[in-house]
Amino acid sequence: MLNRTPESKIGKGARRAAPRDRKRPPLSLGVLDGHLGYFLRRIQVWVFQDFLRTLERVDIRPAQYSVLAVIEANPGLSQSDLADFLGIERARLARMLDRLEKRGLAKRKASPRDRRSHALFLTGEGQKTLKRIKALAAQHEVHLTEKLGAEKRRAMIDMLRDFGR
Amino acid sequence: MLNRTPESKIGKGARRAAPRDRKRPPLSLGVLDGHLGYFLRRIQVWVFQDFLRTLERVDIRPAQYSVLAVIEANPGLSQSDLADFLGIERARLARMLDRLEKRGLAKRKASPRDRRSHALFLTGEGQKTLKRIKALAAQHEVHLTEKLGAEKRRAMIDMLRDFGR
Repeated sequence: MLNRTPESKIGKGARRAAPRDRKRPPLSLGVLDGHLGYFLRRIQVWVFQDFLRTLERVDIRPAQYSVLAVIEANPGLSQSDLADFLGIERARLARMLDRLEKRGLAKRKASPRDRRSHALFLTGEGQKTLKRIKALAAQHEVHLTEKLGAEKRRAMIDMLRDFGR
Repeated sequence: MLNRTPESKIGKGARRAAPRDRKRPPLSLGVLDGHLGYFLRRIQVWVFQDFLRTLERVDIRPAQYSVLAVIEANPGLSQSDLADFLGIERARLARMLDRLEKRGLAKRKASPRDRRSHALFLTGEGQKTLKRIKALAAQHEVHLTEKLGAEKRRAMIDMLRDFGR
């Protein structure tokens, strides 16, 4: 999506040589060039698309991966703490957990501390599946490193790590 | 969404002192800590939310702003070049332009070079509205600079500018 070059359209309307003969028309970003959000959105779309492509065979979305990874790292955490930690709306997280339970990957247990809350765990199947998912996610991270450069990737993680805290 | 602190829940289940008495439970990101995409998604959600909040009174979404800004900077560009340039699917862009035309902000003209293509322009009303939108978008950018720090903001724009090219 990001790197599609318009070669297929070259030849039509070719009476004017430039700019349609070039691989990319020399367009200007205008005021967008001063908005970090614009550039963040572009790379974030690339990242999601590569993630979905690379993890196609395990049928997992980035948000589901985040949920499984945080449950694995913090077994028994509560549903509401998970929602706060990942910045996911509670109702949306509840639906995601429904799906992950149906697939047999995660389970909710009544919390010993708070009857209204649920403690979250991976199932054995969830642990096995997450292992495969992590191997594919590591491939995705290699793609991103190749695309962005190792140094920029590292610098951006360091700059963003404290953003949401 | 990102900075919601769970104070409101403190006090329930308080038999165990830690970790529920702290402002944020000491949870681990696990494997997510090595994924740039996770951190990009967090800041990108913050950016979208601040954008929508700051620009609420003009009722414009980030993608619509991008489209108006690029048409302003490149009057007469074709619909397909705009789609390629911004990485927007053609069908989605067509729907966005329908809406912007209905609001009287943009117009399509038959292209002199290619009858199947459309040349895009802002209307007078579109130019006036975009001026107001840009002033609010500049406020949003100030919020982002305050949140991230001017130096990191600048460094990230520089690192990402060539990403999609």
